[in-house]
Amino acid sequence: MGNTVKRLAILGSTGSVGRQTLEVVRALPHQFHVVGLAAGKNIGLLTKQINEFQPRFVYYQNAKNPLANAEYEFLSLEDMACHPQVDTVVIAISGKSGLSPTIAAVKAGKKVALANKESLVIAGEIITNEAKRSAAHILPIDSEHSAIWQCLNGETQPAAHLILTASGGPFRHYSPTQLKEVTAKQALKHPTWQMGRKVTIDSATLMNKGLEVIEAHWLFDMPSNYIKILIHPQSIIHSMVEFIDGSIKAQLSYPDMRFPIQHALSYPERLSNPQLPRLDWSHVNNLTFAQPNFDTFPCLKLAIEAGEKGGSYPAVLCAADEIVVELFLSERIKFTDIPNLIEQTLERHQAIAHPTLEEIIMVDAWAREKVMQLATRDNP
Amino acid sequence: MGNTVKRLAILGSTGSVGRQTLEVVRALPHQFHVVGLAAGKNIGLLTKQINEFQPRFVYYQNAKNPLANAEYEFLSLEDMACHPQVDTVVIAISGKSGLSPTIAAVKAGKKVALANKESLVIAGEIITNEAKRSAAHILPIDSEHSAIWQCLNGETQPAAHLILTASGGPFRHYSPTQLKEVTAKQALKHPTWQMGRKVTIDSATLMNKGLEVIEAHWLFDMPSNYIKILIHPQSIIHSMVEFIDGSIKAQLSYPDMRFPIQHALSYPERLSNPQLPRLDWSHVNNLTFAQPNFDTFPCLKLAIEAGEKGGSYPAVLCAADEIVVELFLSERIKFTDIPNLIEQTLERHQAIAHPTLEEIIMVDAWAREKVMQLATRDNP
Repeated sequence: MGNTVKRLAILGSTGSVGRQTLEVVRALPHQFHVVGLAAGKNIGLLTKQINEFQPRFVYYQNAKNPLANAEYEFLSLEDMACHPQVDTVVIAISGKSGLSPTIAAVKAGKKVALANKESLVIAGEIITNEAKRSAAHILPIDSEHSAIWQCLNGETQPAAHLILTASGGPFRHYSPTQLKEVTAKQALKHPTWQMGRKVTIDSATLMNKGLEVIEAHWLFDMPSNYIKILIHPQSIIHSMVEFIDGSIKAQLSYPDMRFPIQHALSYPERLSNPQLPRLDWSHVNNLTFAQPNFDTFPCLKLAIEAGEKGGSYPAVLCAADEIVVELFLSERIKFTDIPNLIEQTLERHQAIAHPTLEEIIMVDAWAREKVMQLATRDNP
Repeated sequence: MGNTVKRLAILGSTGSVGRQTLEVVRALPHQFHVVGLAAGKNIGLLTKQINEFQPRFVYYQNAKNPLANAEYEFLSLEDMACHPQVDTVVIAISGKSGLSPTIAAVKAGKKVALANKESLVIAGEIITNEAKRSAAHILPIDSEHSAIWQCLNGETQPAAHLILTASGGPFRHYSPTQLKEVTAKQALKHPTWQMGRKVTIDSATLMNKGLEVIEAHWLFDMPSNYIKILIHPQSIIHSMVEFIDGSIKAQLSYPDMRFPIQHALSYPERLSNPQLPRLDWSHVNNLTFAQPNFDTFPCLKLAIEAGEKGGSYPAVLCAADEIVVELFLSERIKFTDIPNLIEQTLERHQAIAHPTLEEIIMVDAWAREKVMQLATRDNP
C-alpha cells in the first residue's frame, strides 16, 4: 500500500484549510505531490508556497499581474480541478466560489476532498447526481463528516441516526439578551477550533451546524430528521453514528483539522504522521453533552428547515448568511440580526424545487441583494 | 440479508449470558433458532427453557436423572458444539469448563460466540491456531471486545492501540486499607453491569480487566503493551481503538450484555431489536475517564504480567483466581488476600512455554491445589 504518490491540486491553498493541507503534505512528502495551487488574493503566501512546492499548475485571482517565478502553467480553477495529472482535488475555497471547481472535479470523476460547505448545501442534488454518474469520490474534509464517514466504514447497512456534535461556540451559555451585545471580536474567539473568520462566526451562531446537517444529508443519503445535533463543548468526539441495533460508534481526536484533511487525502489508507497530536487520556478526563437550544440559536433551525424544504432554499440561506456575516464582522449589524435577516430573506424567496446550476446562481444573486436591502432598511 | 435462520447451540443457557442470549432470541424469533441448550445444575430453569424453545439437543450435568420432557437428544457439550446442525455455538459457560466445548466448536469451524473468558486466556495460542486451520470465526460476547471488533470493522490496517475501558468496579476510590474490610456483599454490587458472581468479583479486583487484556491480545493479535486500560465509570464507551494516524474510534451503548450478544449472533448484519435501550443523550451528559491504579488493584498487574510471560502462566492465574474468588465469596479470605494468594501461586509455578491442552489441564489442577494450600496456611 501507499507506493503510489497522490497528486494533489489544492484550491484555496492560502486559507486555513489550504495551509493545513500543506502541513500534512510537508509531514508526508513521500505520499503526496502538490501539482496545483490556487489562491485568491494572498499573493505573498502563494508565492512562498509555489517556491516550496513547485507546482505545475497555479491559479490566482489577479492574473493580469503574473508572479515573478513563472515556471508553472496558469490554469483556471475549473481546468485545474479536472486536469488529468491531478488525482485528488482539495476544495479549500470557502463560500460560493468553491461550487464551480467542485462540480468540475466531480464531473471529471476525481477524488474530491471537500472542505467547502456551500457546494453541497446549495447544490447537493446536482453534485451527488454527477458523482454517481462519474464515480467521483467525495471525501469530506470536516471533522464531523469525516467522523461519520469513519464510523460508517465497513458497515453494510444504512445508519439509523447520525449524531453531529457541536462545540456550541463561545456563546452557548448566553441568554438572548446577552447575545444582542456580542461583538465580532468575541465571536471570532472559538473555544476549541482554529478556523477561518466566516466559519468561526457560523460556529458562534450555530449556522455552521445547520449547514452540516444539510451536507450530511447529501453525503450520507440520510433524511435530516434522522440527523441529531448534540452539544459537546470539548470537541473531542467529532460525531457519531447510531446503527439499527442501537450500537453507536464515535470518532475522537483533539480538535485539529489536519486529522480530517489527512484522512481525506490518505483514504482508504491511514498514515502515521508524528506531527498529529495523540489523545492523552490523562488530560482528557471529562466529556460533556447537552441538547442544542434552537430558540437561542435560531440559525440552526433556519438551516435545518431550509435543508428540509430543499430546492433553492439552501442557496438563499447560504447567500444571505455570507452577506450578513460580513456585515456583522464589519460591525454594521448586531449578532442577533444575523438570523433575523436570513429569515426575512428566506420568507421572501419564491422557491424552485429542483434548481439548475444557473438558477442556483440567480437565486444566490437575488438573496445577496435582498438581504442587503433588508439590512440597510433595518440599519440605515 | 437475514433470510436464513441461524441455528444456535447455547452452552450455559441458565447463566447470566445464557439467559440474555435467549432474551435476544425471543426478541428476534425469525432470525435465530435454538437447536441446542446446555446447562449445569439449574435443572428447573433448563426445563422451562426446553419447554419454550424445544431444542433438538440438550445437555445437563446430571444425566442420570433424565428430564421428564424427553423429546430431545442428549449430547455432550463437545458433541453439541461441533454438531453439523449447529451454525453458531454460544459459549456462555464460565470458568475452565468452557474450554473443551470451545475447542470442539473451533475445530469444527463453527461461528463461536465466545463469552467464556478463560478459554482464550489459558489456551489462546491453541484456540487461535485451531481457528486459523478450521476457518472458525471467534465472535466476542463481551462489551469490550465487541466494541473493539466493531471499531476495527472495515479498517484495512492494524490498530496502533486498543483502549479497554473499565468501570473501575465498586471500590475504585477505596484506599488499600479500606479494601481490606470489603465484604462479599459489597463486592457483588457492581455499579453499572448486571453479571454473574465470579465476573462481578473479578470486576471489583480489576482481574477481569487484566484477563480482557490477555483475551484482546489473542482476539486482535495485538501485543499487550499496545493495549491500554482506561477507567470510565459510566460504562457507556465500551472500548476504543486508536489507529496509526491518531484517530480513535469508540463504541457506545448503555451497559447491557444483550448488545454484544446480539452483535455476535447477527454479525455481519445488524438487527433492529426494539427491546434494546437506545442511548438517551438528554440523560447521558457526562463521560469521565481516569487512569487505573495498579498499586491499589494488583490483580490487574498480575494478569497483564501473566499474559506477557505467556505459556502456562495465564492458566495458573485463572485457576488460582477461580479458587480465591470462591474463598472470598464464602468469607474464608479477605478481599486483599485475592491478589496476594494468586501472586504467591504464580511465583511457585514452573512455567511451560507452549503448553499442550493436557499440560494446561495439569497446570490448572496444580494451581488450584497450590492456592488452596497457601490459603489454608494463611487462614487456617
